[in-house]
Amino acid sequence: MRYPAAIERLIEHFMRFPGIGRKTAERYAFHVVHHVDAETATDFGTALRRAVDDVKPCVTCGFLTDKTTCDICKNPDRERRKILVVEESKDAIVIEKSAIHDGLYHVLNGVISPSDGVGPEDLNLKALLERLKDPDVEEVILAMNFSEEGETTAMYIDRLLENSGLLVTRIAYGMPAGGNIGYADALTLAKALEGRKKY
Amino acid sequence: MRYPAAIERLIEHFMRFPGIGRKTAERYAFHVVHHVDAETATDFGTALRRAVDDVKPCVTCGFLTDKTTCDICKNPDRERRKILVVEESKDAIVIEKSAIHDGLYHVLNGVISPSDGVGPEDLNLKALLERLKDPDVEEVILAMNFSEEGETTAMYIDRLLENSGLLVTRIAYGMPAGGNIGYADALTLAKALEGRKKY
Repeated sequence: MRYPAAIERLIEHFMRFPGIGRKTAERYAFHVVHHVDAETATDFGTALRRAVDDVKPCVTCGFLTDKTTCDICKNPDRERRKILVVEESKDAIVIEKSAIHDGLYHVLNGVISPSDGVGPEDLNLKALLERLKDPDVEEVILAMNFSEEGETTAMYIDRLLENSGLLVTRIAYGMPAGGNIGYADALTLAKALEGRKKY
Repeated sequence: MRYPAAIERLIEHFMRFPGIGRKTAERYAFHVVHHVDAETATDFGTALRRAVDDVKPCVTCGFLTDKTTCDICKNPDRERRKILVVEESKDAIVIEKSAIHDGLYHVLNGVISPSDGVGPEDLNLKALLERLKDPDVEEVILAMNFSEEGETTAMYIDRLLENSGLLVTRIAYGMPAGGNIGYADALTLAKALEGRKKY
């Protein structure tokens, strides 16, 4: 007794996604069988192809876009002196939503991670160096995640720009809003202490 | 700054699945953009349509199949005196894998759940009553999940078959293999005690 081939094939597709095991994939496949109509299934299939075919990194900043150059890079009202560097497009979106940065972005589309075989050459760095030739640029803000890979990547870029004459800064790491010191991990506390400022 | 339309559309599709929120849907959509090639995306889309179009409940037992009648129902070697009733096709598959039942199955494709608006009329019960007219059938084994809905459903079927002259049994609920009494929940312990047998 086995699932019909059509279900098995769908399960295999779902299992290719990060964090989806056999049980979850079965659950999703059954959801399709029981609750998805033919029109929606076709549209989902089209959406999959479109995402693969139409979405590419912006040639300037690396942000995922369906145009050649993304809307932020094309926007003449953005402050062109500051470029904020992030790991992924979604990081840029979160920062953009909080409306705390009026400059430009640069998306690396990854982090240096030797254990995953990802080196500096796999990141969107050439385009960054190209952009920095623009005399308007004054500051590069590194906004990597607070992780070993994030720190390695930030350090690498900092060294790369050592003699560029640009101001290279990085965002602060420390206690988050609402964070309880009694429950904080040692690394966060260490960063919070290390980054202390005169009151 | 927004994701390209192609990504948003894909995120919306993933969010329709049970237990997938915005963040997870974004993660899956990015997986597609970064790691899925055009051929795989097309095949995934076809698999979605096939699962919707080709997979239907077996007309006899309700097990999901791409044929009119499933392989178990068609198998002349199966013991036709016992019909084991389960909630979902996957339950039948798990039981079948453990090779403890040589009879037939009947899949309800759901459970009675008033809070979800699912009543007895939504379950695959008419076909069950039809099958039970077969004079070969002697026993109906109820193998619902150990949950309020499962118990309600089992009780409903038991009453439905009260005057059928058939032996209606249900599987035992109690401590699972390897289960530690010190960590067991009250309901499991109650069932285990209630179902005790003379040593």
